[in-house]
Amino acid sequence: MFVGVDIGGTKVAAGLVDADGKISSQKRVPMISNLSAQEGLSAVLSAIAQVRPSDAAQVSGIGICAPGPLNPKTGVILNPPNVPCWRDFPLAESVQRNYPVPVHVDNDANAAALAETRWGAARGYRNVFYATIGTGIGTGIIFDGRIFHGRTGAAGEGGHVSIDYRGPLCGCGKPGCIEALASGTAIVRRAREAIGTGRKSCMLQLAGGNLTAITGEVVGRASDTGDALAQEILTETTEMLALWLSNMVDLLDPEVIVIGGGAAALLRRFFDQLRDRMPKLAVNPRASEVPIVHAHYGADSGIAGGAALCA
Amino acid sequence: MFVGVDIGGTKVAAGLVDADGKISSQKRVPMISNLSAQEGLSAVLSAIAQVRPSDAAQVSGIGICAPGPLNPKTGVILNPPNVPCWRDFPLAESVQRNYPVPVHVDNDANAAALAETRWGAARGYRNVFYATIGTGIGTGIIFDGRIFHGRTGAAGEGGHVSIDYRGPLCGCGKPGCIEALASGTAIVRRAREAIGTGRKSCMLQLAGGNLTAITGEVVGRASDTGDALAQEILTETTEMLALWLSNMVDLLDPEVIVIGGGAAALLRRFFDQLRDRMPKLAVNPRASEVPIVHAHYGADSGIAGGAALCA
Repeated sequence: MFVGVDIGGTKVAAGLVDADGKISSQKRVPMISNLSAQEGLSAVLSAIAQVRPSDAAQVSGIGICAPGPLNPKTGVILNPPNVPCWRDFPLAESVQRNYPVPVHVDNDANAAALAETRWGAARGYRNVFYATIGTGIGTGIIFDGRIFHGRTGAAGEGGHVSIDYRGPLCGCGKPGCIEALASGTAIVRRAREAIGTGRKSCMLQLAGGNLTAITGEVVGRASDTGDALAQEILTETTEMLALWLSNMVDLLDPEVIVIGGGAAALLRRFFDQLRDRMPKLAVNPRASEVPIVHAHYGADSGIAGGAALCA
Repeated sequence: MFVGVDIGGTKVAAGLVDADGKISSQKRVPMISNLSAQEGLSAVLSAIAQVRPSDAAQVSGIGICAPGPLNPKTGVILNPPNVPCWRDFPLAESVQRNYPVPVHVDNDANAAALAETRWGAARGYRNVFYATIGTGIGTGIIFDGRIFHGRTGAAGEGGHVSIDYRGPLCGCGKPGCIEALASGTAIVRRAREAIGTGRKSCMLQLAGGNLTAITGEVVGRASDTGDALAQEILTETTEMLALWLSNMVDLLDPEVIVIGGGAAALLRRFFDQLRDRMPKLAVNPRASEVPIVHAHYGADSGIAGGAALCA
């Protein structure tokens, strides 16, 4: 058994995961990101304690999805914008001092990519491109069954691959990152902007007449009922994702593409369009052979990912 | 010693290369691409015969840069748009029948990337991103000292990574490929278009008043003399290349970036701008540590590349 830990913006989730990737128990502990380093660590230790089986010897490793940038080799958190008190914090070492088993640390998309490869939608493949489309877009590259980290551990930041050099600035400062164009946040922004400029849509009604109450879920519901604007926005988003994935196929030529995350659910009805368009855009003549599949893990991908780091 | 062979659009070049990557003798044989498969093969065999030392035992391998798509594992040319008679042609096997030494086949950018890693500007590195900017843009990815081929052998097509999803269509059909924006061909197209719409520039004079006589070399010379339009075009091109390279760094996190090709010479004065801008665009906080260096091999990169496939 492994303990998988997922450190989010406001909470730490931990779960007990078996050798087949099945999650048995799960707990959540609130964490306020601007606490001291020690208080943050306490939240992590507390979440682990709550899922650990009474027989401690059953746990052969602890894996943690932590906010980056981080060093996956040493388990040190470097300079996380969202958890400033953890600057240069030796997370793996600190946890291991309390629980003397191997402790691994990586970012959530890398870890989730590994969980999908070991136990999920990419089982049986060795070379995988994984993307999670939520508030932002995170990606993980699996080469030969292992996370591809690159020189500094910061490889696989596919969400910050730009497909529009004159496009809107991403939070990272780069113009046209796919995260700035096709994430849940970008979808909602485009919907609000279009309605703000007078486009008719049932989305405003679904949001109680309040423009700022339009969420990804509202866009998805409107699209399902045939709302033209919602469908237009999701079709555009799909086209951008298809181009971006064709870039990944032309560069990395993976065996499979796995897509997870909350906004991916929103795009579920557009997956056939994605599967149709990606190979038409790619220069790789065999791009149509690459399956584009839904992730197996949902909101628990961080817990499964953490565990996969140990397996 | 190795024999390196470079099959171009109109000629076959072969050279004798030693274990340090030094090219001793070189020969060129004309080749017309719409000849029969056998006549094309004869040109290749003839080029090899002309550089092979009298003591055949000195040659321990033959490496060939061939038109793609191809299968680097089997040495079979698949469906080359520029050499239609070589459809499904077993090139490696055909050459080996005449010269019984190991024969390797790969595309030119992959092979050149390997030559730079073994003997050239990326010597001492294991993870390299190589780009050749000429008429088109080709790239090769070296992981752990070897060419990264991906699932089908078609990985590393970085020239067809798009940075403009609404941009001009590339020859491959995808919009906004970096090849369609920043290759020598694209630079010349932009110069002609700008002058065609009335922009003042000494380029027209340098080209004898003939718009279609403006070449990459003309753009370079005009830029060197301070021509505002030529400098504007090369600055824009550099900015697009910086964004594209920042994408590569965020995805692949290589140890070094090597840039070769004819149009790269044109951009030589803009390399400091490239080195300054790339890390500012990348989300990787350590992107500024990645050296961007000039390729060691020039027009002979295909010969060196072919030889590197054997080394």
